[in-house]
Amino acid sequence: MLQDFCVADKTSQVLVNGFACKDPKAVSAEDFFFSGLHMAGNTSNKQGSAVTGVNVAQIAGLNTLGISLARVDYAPYGQNPPHIHPRATEILTVLEGSLYVGFVTSNPDNKLFAKVLSKGDVFVFPQGSIHFQFNYGTNSAVALAALSSMNPGVITIGNAVFGSKPAISGDILAKAFQVDKMVVDRIQAQF
Amino acid sequence: MLQDFCVADKTSQVLVNGFACKDPKAVSAEDFFFSGLHMAGNTSNKQGSAVTGVNVAQIAGLNTLGISLARVDYAPYGQNPPHIHPRATEILTVLEGSLYVGFVTSNPDNKLFAKVLSKGDVFVFPQGSIHFQFNYGTNSAVALAALSSMNPGVITIGNAVFGSKPAISGDILAKAFQVDKMVVDRIQAQF
Amino acid sequence: MLQDFCVADKTSQVLVNGFACKDPKAVSAEDFFFSGLHMAGNTSNKQGSAVTGVNVAQIAGLNTLGISLARVDYAPYGQNPPHIHPRATEILTVLEGSLYVGFVTSNPDNKLFAKVLSKGDVFVFPQGSIHFQFNYGTNSAVALAALSSMNPGVITIGNAVFGSKPAISGDILAKAFQVDKMVVDRIQAQF
Amino acid sequence: MLQDFCVADKTSQVLVNGFACKDPKAVSAEDFFFSGLHMAGNTSNKQGSAVTGVNVAQIAGLNTLGISLARVDYAPYGQNPPHIHPRATEILTVLEGSLYVGFVTSNPDNKLFAKVLSKGDVFVFPQGSIHFQFNYGTNSAVALAALSSMNPGVITIGNAVFGSKPAISGDILAKAFQVDKMVVDRIQAQF
Amino acid sequence: MLQDFCVADKTSQVLVNGFACKDPKAVSAEDFFFSGLHMAGNTSNKQGSAVTGVNVAQIAGLNTLGISLARVDYAPYGQNPPHIHPRATEILTVLEGSLYVGFVTSNPDNKLFAKVLSKGDVFVFPQGSIHFQFNYGTNSAVALAALSSMNPGVITIGNAVFGSKPAISGDILAKAFQVDKMVVDRIQAQF
Amino acid sequence: MLQDFCVADKTSQVLVNGFACKDPKAVSAEDFFFSGLHMAGNTSNKQGSAVTGVNVAQIAGLNTLGISLARVDYAPYGQNPPHIHPRATEILTVLEGSLYVGFVTSNPDNKLFAKVLSKGDVFVFPQGSIHFQFNYGTNSAVALAALSSMNPGVITIGNAVFGSKPAISGDILAKAFQVDKMVVDRIQAQF
Repeated sequence: MLQDFCVADKTSQVLVNGFACKDPKAVSAEDFFFSGLHMAGNTSNKQGSAVTGVNVAQIAGLNTLGISLARVDYAPYGQNPPHIHPRATEILTVLEGSLYVGFVTSNPDNKLFAKVLSKGDVFVFPQGSIHFQFNYGTNSAVALAALSSMNPGVITIGNAVFGSKPAISGDILAKAFQVDKMVVDRIQAQF
Repeated sequence: MLQDFCVADKTSQVLVNGFACKDPKAVSAEDFFFSGLHMAGNTSNKQGSAVTGVNVAQIAGLNTLGISLARVDYAPYGQNPPHIHPRATEILTVLEGSLYVGFVTSNPDNKLFAKVLSKGDVFVFPQGSIHFQFNYGTNSAVALAALSSMNPGVITIGNAVFGSKPAISGDILAKAFQVDKMVVDRIQAQF
Repeated sequence: MLQDFCVADKTSQVLVNGFACKDPKAVSAEDFFFSGLHMAGNTSNKQGSAVTGVNVAQIAGLNTLGISLARVDYAPYGQNPPHIHPRATEILTVLEGSLYVGFVTSNPDNKLFAKVLSKGDVFVFPQGSIHFQFNYGTNSAVALAALSSMNPGVITIGNAVFGSKPAISGDILAKAFQVDKMVVDRIQAQF
Repeated sequence: MLQDFCVADKTSQVLVNGFACKDPKAVSAEDFFFSGLHMAGNTSNKQGSAVTGVNVAQIAGLNTLGISLARVDYAPYGQNPPHIHPRATEILTVLEGSLYVGFVTSNPDNKLFAKVLSKGDVFVFPQGSIHFQFNYGTNSAVALAALSSMNPGVITIGNAVFGSKPAISGDILAKAFQVDKMVVDRIQAQF
Repeated sequence: MLQDFCVADKTSQVLVNGFACKDPKAVSAEDFFFSGLHMAGNTSNKQGSAVTGVNVAQIAGLNTLGISLARVDYAPYGQNPPHIHPRATEILTVLEGSLYVGFVTSNPDNKLFAKVLSKGDVFVFPQGSIHFQFNYGTNSAVALAALSSMNPGVITIGNAVFGSKPAISGDILAKAFQVDKMVVDRIQAQF
Repeated sequence: MLQDFCVADKTSQVLVNGFACKDPKAVSAEDFFFSGLHMAGNTSNKQGSAVTGVNVAQIAGLNTLGISLARVDYAPYGQNPPHIHPRATEILTVLEGSLYVGFVTSNPDNKLFAKVLSKGDVFVFPQGSIHFQFNYGTNSAVALAALSSMNPGVITIGNAVFGSKPAISGDILAKAFQVDKMVVDRIQAQF
């Protein structure tokens, strides 16, 4: 941060680490604003969850400022499947319902730190760790996550490993997960 | 961040930038957990607001991870008076009610960026800027703020300028705010 | 810092965090140079002080390098009123005269660390803290300040709180400083 | 880096982000030295590969210096299965043999960038990305990897997702990978 | 790092700290790739050594990623003369032959940490320290160095002090090295 | 910076990157204060200059704050010989007299940026560059330097290359500077 703010200029033809800045004279309060985080996302999908991001893509004023948000909705038995944020720690607050959440540490321990959360509970997922949230209840749940980057990124393990474009070779994945190549084929077909 | 996590060891006799770390073998999920953010703070005070912080003081696992939260409750006509976070940008979400919020840029422009927010609205206060929230409505309001530091710090302008211990000399403040020294005396008496 | 230097190209139509760089082949010693810091600023103003900045606005070569200077002149009884640098720690050396200086810590202590300085004395104001210098003597004083940012920014409390454009509502400030709204009106009229 | 070096004092009872420093007077050239990277690791394991790390655990002098190494040996058809380094970018040089390598970008594209490498070829895996190396040839292969952290960390996807202690619930993983819970059980049994 | 990658766009007319980014849609695996590090450099020169750099100049994908490599070849009695990397720590692995290596600490101790290395040995040169490698053997030697910057920079002491363009005044160098000005003239004539 | 300040506790038996912190309750204004920068250093030495440092060694309160100062005195024809600060950019102000100053860029250009400075002139030496100041006048000169680190470090080229303990082998230096080994012996004898 080398000035009061550097609102992202998404029309700039020059791409830089982060975004180029709008002319400060053209900046208004709208550049620091987002509306609609009280509305539920559509959880009618395989995982039964929906993430509504509020990062530099939605609020241009977040450029260079190192923080962002996401609302997550969970249908009953819905989940935010195992994923990592390569550029951010996450701190999550349960607004409605209950969630079973956890993260796993790096090799060699691969220790799972997990906990059941209720409304008003807060949990931290350290940067780069694989983590998940699961709504094991019969009501829908809502959480608000804050992340320590203007653009935290999401790598959903299933999608990245079994659904990359082009696909990672089935031989590699079969050996990596110690399963028959046919199992890999079937998983890849889902993504 | 030089390891998966460095949970604050608040019993350490050695003080460092941030906190020393607990033995990782003694770390549990509780170290990343806080409970109670669904409960309103007590707004029966002069400003009519209450801040419930969730930073490294409440969640030891936030040490070195660069993020924290605060719930803010506002009575009708209550406000979170002008203040700065010397070490963090803030992104605030209105959970209930309406708020008039704003921040002021640095010299020489001292431009105010302000906006009325409703439930589900989000606003950003860049690091180091003087900012405030005011509940101009007849109902109480609630916001959840995320901050880009494990220990963002708060400098409430009124308290720091007129309520420091010991006091800043009245001569200095009278000239700084271009008022009679008696006015300064009266303000200082409030803090 | 990802190259030997990145001299600010102030003619660039592309704005970035900091500044775009001049073509290194066009850089000369003049880009790292400023002249005139031996000359006193004009202290004929309400605060009785003058700040002559030497930052990336004056020396284009400071871009990306994380440091800058300012000369401050103080008339007798003049002061550099309470202000913060949102992006820098300051280390100040008294070149002539005497100064009473101080800074205030964050909530909840709001502790004032203050001291009288004479010629050759040095004092540190930590990043983000409210601080001031006051020439309580009958001679003019001069100080040289170094700041840990190429563009430290200055938020003068009086100007930002009572002189923002547009103004912060008098109701908010009256409650913030626990004074009558008429007092706020009078202060705002000064800025 | 706030001094010439801060050699890790692994006997310190105080744990900090990184490591406490040895008394500089007791530091010798041995603290910056490691021997044995010319020797092959034992690849007689399920993945057919072996990683010999040279980070702050092996060279105490790397503490605070932001870099480390690893030698990787691959049996014929051996692989370094999909994994991430949460705290480092990797740049890998093939010393012997041939490797098929790749990394996958974050959501929503999950694009695979992959390439066959021969002796003397170099490839980059950006920080936080899932990546792998596969020796598809009939000879063993050797690579030297450099990483941009003194303690980059390794999260092997298979181990962390299917081999965590305690295990992530099979219901969660079955839904995450869109497979029958029995398949998850079988995979978990391998780890 | 504010996105998955920011591959250097070397055709950009806008220069920034580091490089502007290519359109991510135009990025391919080739942007993370370099070939030829198995080939020896030409050591037929005064110092008897050759450095083959693999940094952002050779691999555009290294932009913003904080790491690079260099292969160094040494003829018998050849050396990589005293130099510093102003922006990187170096970790060096001996691939072939033997080397005598060392670095010197800052004032006032100027302590030399030195060691003879054989094949498979690794040594660390902390950022900013003057260091060297000397092949005291009768066979050629090869090392692979990793550096903690995408563009570490090299300041060879001899070239910078005695071979700058224009030259540093002989009077200054004569006094700096406590020699006759004629000696300086003779050294300068070599560079 | 993870709290308002972390004043160096130089009595701590635990050494860390930088310094451990004093108990904040025991901190006073004296911890941010240094006296005596108006007094000239003793320039009766071979280089005819004296550096009076004001860094974390002199002001414990500078710990973690990223800035420091130095006063430099120059006898007539005295000089601050070629040196680098491995951890800081320097910005220098001439308080008295005239100086010829310069810095040299990295390989391959090794371009000298130099200029004659008078009282009130300011010049910047980018981090890691070899730079010098020479008083070519018949009066003594004084400069105040600010540096972008609490502990910038100084590597005087002459001392580090020719005066290290133990010495760098004369064979290495003779080849590095393309001189006869006897010349190296004579230079080494001076340091």
